[in-house]
Amino acid sequence: MSKISTKPPSGMRDFLPADLLRRRAVIGVVERAYEAHGFVPLETPTIENLSTLTGKYGEEGDQLMYRLLHRRDALRRPLERAFEEGRMASEVELADQGLRYDLTVPLARVVAQYRTLPRFFKRYQIQPVWRADRPGRGRFREFYQCDVDVIGTESRLAEAEVCSAVATALVALGFAEFTIHLNHRELLRAMVRAAGIDEALEGTALVAVDKLDKIGEEGVLDELESRGVDREAGARLLAMITVGEADMDDAAVLERLAGQVDARGKAAVAELEELIGLCAHNPAGAHLKVSPELARGLGYYTGPIFEIRVPDFPSSVGGGGRYDNLIGMFGKREIPAVGFSLGLERLIVVKGERGDFDALDGALDMMLCWQVEAGPVLAVATTLRAAGVRVEVFPEPLKLGKQLHYADAEGVKARFAGIIGERELAAGQISVKHLESGRQATLDVGEVTPARLAQLAAGDPPK
Amino acid sequence: MSKISTKPPSGMRDFLPADLLRRRAVIGVVERAYEAHGFVPLETPTIENLSTLTGKYGEEGDQLMYRLLHRRDALRRPLERAFEEGRMASEVELADQGLRYDLTVPLARVVAQYRTLPRFFKRYQIQPVWRADRPGRGRFREFYQCDVDVIGTESRLAEAEVCSAVATALVALGFAEFTIHLNHRELLRAMVRAAGIDEALEGTALVAVDKLDKIGEEGVLDELESRGVDREAGARLLAMITVGEADMDDAAVLERLAGQVDARGKAAVAELEELIGLCAHNPAGAHLKVSPELARGLGYYTGPIFEIRVPDFPSSVGGGGRYDNLIGMFGKREIPAVGFSLGLERLIVVKGERGDFDALDGALDMMLCWQVEAGPVLAVATTLRAAGVRVEVFPEPLKLGKQLHYADAEGVKARFAGIIGERELAAGQISVKHLESGRQATLDVGEVTPARLAQLAAGDPPK
Repeated sequence: MSKISTKPPSGMRDFLPADLLRRRAVIGVVERAYEAHGFVPLETPTIENLSTLTGKYGEEGDQLMYRLLHRRDALRRPLERAFEEGRMASEVELADQGLRYDLTVPLARVVAQYRTLPRFFKRYQIQPVWRADRPGRGRFREFYQCDVDVIGTESRLAEAEVCSAVATALVALGFAEFTIHLNHRELLRAMVRAAGIDEALEGTALVAVDKLDKIGEEGVLDELESRGVDREAGARLLAMITVGEADMDDAAVLERLAGQVDARGKAAVAELEELIGLCAHNPAGAHLKVSPELARGLGYYTGPIFEIRVPDFPSSVGGGGRYDNLIGMFGKREIPAVGFSLGLERLIVVKGERGDFDALDGALDMMLCWQVEAGPVLAVATTLRAAGVRVEVFPEPLKLGKQLHYADAEGVKARFAGIIGERELAAGQISVKHLESGRQATLDVGEVTPARLAQLAAGDPPK
Repeated sequence: MSKISTKPPSGMRDFLPADLLRRRAVIGVVERAYEAHGFVPLETPTIENLSTLTGKYGEEGDQLMYRLLHRRDALRRPLERAFEEGRMASEVELADQGLRYDLTVPLARVVAQYRTLPRFFKRYQIQPVWRADRPGRGRFREFYQCDVDVIGTESRLAEAEVCSAVATALVALGFAEFTIHLNHRELLRAMVRAAGIDEALEGTALVAVDKLDKIGEEGVLDELESRGVDREAGARLLAMITVGEADMDDAAVLERLAGQVDARGKAAVAELEELIGLCAHNPAGAHLKVSPELARGLGYYTGPIFEIRVPDFPSSVGGGGRYDNLIGMFGKREIPAVGFSLGLERLIVVKGERGDFDALDGALDMMLCWQVEAGPVLAVATTLRAAGVRVEVFPEPLKLGKQLHYADAEGVKARFAGIIGERELAAGQISVKHLESGRQATLDVGEVTPARLAQLAAGDPPK
């Protein structure tokens, strides 16, 4: 016998039925919340051209991207060419396609490609993405993102709607105490300017500031200094970032910030105030919190930015923001856009650790256990299935006791056993047993419907 | 502006909302049919180790497989080694993972890996697979398979159940005239032996015979001869393959075949007879047809084999069979198995060409058009969404006429427009207009439910 490993590759997962049913339940809740907000579904291919993917996610993104090896002649040619030229082949010669890295860049490509999309395109997309990152708790190399985006408007209503959609999803999933941290890309820029930090160091400075809750104020100052920001300017930036005090509300924090930044910074503050005002009317409002330290990694944000955190989980479960320049990279026109993404795996990890999944139904209504010829049993199964009952037929002519035992076994857990012996077959009946309660009834085959089974499970007397 | 192509790569597809809703409708029907038969869902990762994938699909499979280029050091090392050794790097040095090529091999790996699965594991799996094949009508490089498999029993009931599941799915999708062609791997072998063809040429001979409907009898004989099968033996094989005559029923065809093959061949015939007898009791029975020429490409089948065809479509829309040795390649034990796979894209192509998709509902219930402050409009949207109405809020304060026009535009097609002016807002009401019929009603916000909207659409007078 061979020694092929039967584990999935590192960072990859098999979803066995019970896990998958839980995942689908979560996805269903998110979809309904997104659809309630008028978002319509989009799917894009797993494989994209590297010209679409590279340069959009920063240096780290390019390194973590999965690339597809050229095949046959397309592989032979660059290898031969390098060999003839007396050099090693390079990565760019060996691949020109890769795996989807997020859902935002493919959306931007789609919006640039199809002119038939509505002017205000509100799409949701729930698909896996692939990153060759170090696996960890709630972090995999193949994982699902659940994105909502509004394309085509600069209106703050778009921000309010994506915040409302993800807040509705989280509430429906049973998360009560999440926080939507809120900041603005132009406010961050204005704070950097106000601190007297060179614009060229802006990105570097924001990366350091973003680590405030992990490494503390001294840590941030050290890191800023090591990256060429002098300590006084760093301290000025940090003072603005931490301008909020305990119990200070968002309006007061924004007012203080507005007093310290230039006109463009003040305009960003006004946008945040407008957004907070709109969200007072939707389910996101109660969860918003202005967080001047929030920077987010991806470089393409241009306006408000968001990040969701839940108690007892170390990293964010979602994030997003406005990106008014990304689509222009693919097309002739700049098209404004704003989006929000939830990480499916992280939601599932949190829910799983809270034991929220216990009450999930099994997928099998009835196991038919039989001691007659197999053909007529299949005829009964066909009738029951047409009536909407999910039926498995025990596949081998074992003793009835073994069949019944299997019907209730771990990993099978049929809700009912349906017993067909000679007597039942002759009478056109089934002996139906509710396995959890042990309640039994002998029913005509035509009587066995989901409603009648629910009655039996509930212990109601038959009509 | 840049010149990045915005098309998806060759053979890949974007699914815009209307297309995706159609695909989901088809997938939903297939899932319900499979679940009605007691199959439970499984998903496996996109990325598999090449040690799992290679050697399972024949030479063609290995060539069409997508491989993932090693990254960083794992890429640098083999390139350097080859350079130092004065040779070209080879494909096997550059990749050790690839993309899922079908759903059967990952299932076999899963069954070998997890000991907690039920003894009779009935799983369905609907996921994309990737093959770098030449794209064509209904043929893509990323496409979905819809598989059902029964693991763990040699019982013919398992064959009957997978046939019933796919037949139920096809009937539910509106296919009336499909045919499930039926043959048996051991019967094919027995015919090859009975024709006096060397066992070493068996695979070659069966590939040629499988082309009978494409290249005709002379074509098959020529091809057999060119592959080393002498013409008389080829003619004997062909005579058995074509033993059925017009209007001859399956029982008669099988009886004739049984008379011409050895004991192992007769046993295969008996298995087919048993299967046909069982299927007389399920939805597959009316569609079965014994087809002695059916060979199917994949090498791992060991028992009955199936292939589904529908009128007016040149290739099969699904196929499968028994494969009792595949799982043993991954584990310590041989585990019997039988499966059936439907090709989602081909079903959709056929349904699309018949215009079966016209009646699909849109995804948006109501576009809120407004001429008041935005905040209170969001409050109304929040109330409606909580009541189960899928609501989009027009995102910009344009003139009412433009908003209404957009609500009915191509690609948006809201079922209702909900108009909120100062008067409505003050009264806690919405003017609701059914866009198709033009019917209008002014409703209290709390009255707007899916049921009330259905009433308005149907033209019923309010209660």
